[in-house]
Amino acid sequence: MTDTSYTLQPIGLIRSDLTTLEAAPRQGHEGAPDAWIDVSESAALALHGIAVGDALVILTWFHRSARDVRQVHPRGEIENPLTGVFATRSPDRPNPIGLHRVTVLEIHGNSLKVGPMEAIDGTPVIDIKPVLPQSADS
Amino acid sequence: MTDTSYTLQPIGLIRSDLTTLEAAPRQGHEGAPDAWIDVSESAALALHGIAVGDALVILTWFHRSARDVRQVHPRGEIENPLTGVFATRSPDRPNPIGLHRVTVLEIHGNSLKVGPMEAIDGTPVIDIKPVLPQSADS
Repeated sequence: MTDTSYTLQPIGLIRSDLTTLEAAPRQGHEGAPDAWIDVSESAALALHGIAVGDALVILTWFHRSARDVRQVHPRGEIENPLTGVFATRSPDRPNPIGLHRVTVLEIHGNSLKVGPMEAIDGTPVIDIKPVLPQSADS
Repeated sequence: MTDTSYTLQPIGLIRSDLTTLEAAPRQGHEGAPDAWIDVSESAALALHGIAVGDALVILTWFHRSARDVRQVHPRGEIENPLTGVFATRSPDRPNPIGLHRVTVLEIHGNSLKVGPMEAIDGTPVIDIKPVLPQSADS
C-alpha cells in the first residue's frame, strides 16, 4: 500500500569541503570534489570487502529538499519547460534520494574517501552499493 | 546526525506476475519480466515528461528484507566468503533500497510498463529517475 510509510536510518554522513547548496555542482561529473563518508559504528561491518579502486553507488538523503515539489524547470532555468521531477534529477522530489557514482580513493577505519561527490557536508548517507559489472545501472 | 531518521512515503507500487521471492531473479538482466508501476495520484504530476523508450532507474523498497543483516554469502552460496552487504546487492541491508535500470515500454494514465523488473508484486516504489546521458551511473 502506498499509504504505509517506512523509516530510513542513515548509515553515515558526508564530510566535505562543500558546505553550501549554492557551491555544490548539480552533478558529480560537473566538477565535484572528493569527500569522506563516515560510516556509523552500527553499520561498519557492512563495509567488509570494499577496496580502494572500487566503483560504488552512494545513496544519500537530500535533507534540505522540498518534498512537495512535483514539477520543476530543469536545472533551475526558466526557459526549460516545467517537467515532472521523476523525469529529472531535481533534489526536490517526494523522496529526496540522491544517487552518486563514485570511485573509492582511500579507506581509513570506518571512513571511505570517494569522488566525485556533489552532496554537501553533513548530508546523510543511506546506502552503499557496488556498481554491477553486468549492467550500466547502479 | 546518523541518529536522525527520515520517513519514506512510497510513490507507487509494482504490479507484476512475480509473486514470490523464490521466483524472482536476483538481477533484472537475469531473466526478469516486465512489470507495471502504478503511481499514486498524489505523485502523478511528477511523471510529466516521461516517454516510451526512456531509460529510467526505479528505486524500490524491499519491504520483506532483514534490516539487521551486515554480512552475507554473496548470491546465497555458502562457498562465497562472508562479505559486507555494502559490497553486494543483497536485498538484506540496513535500508533495503533496490535499484532497477529499466526501459519504459508503455504508459497508461498514471501507470508505466517497464522492464526488466525483478521486484515482486506489491513492492513499494520510492523514486523514479532518468538515466543521465553524461554518465554510466543511474
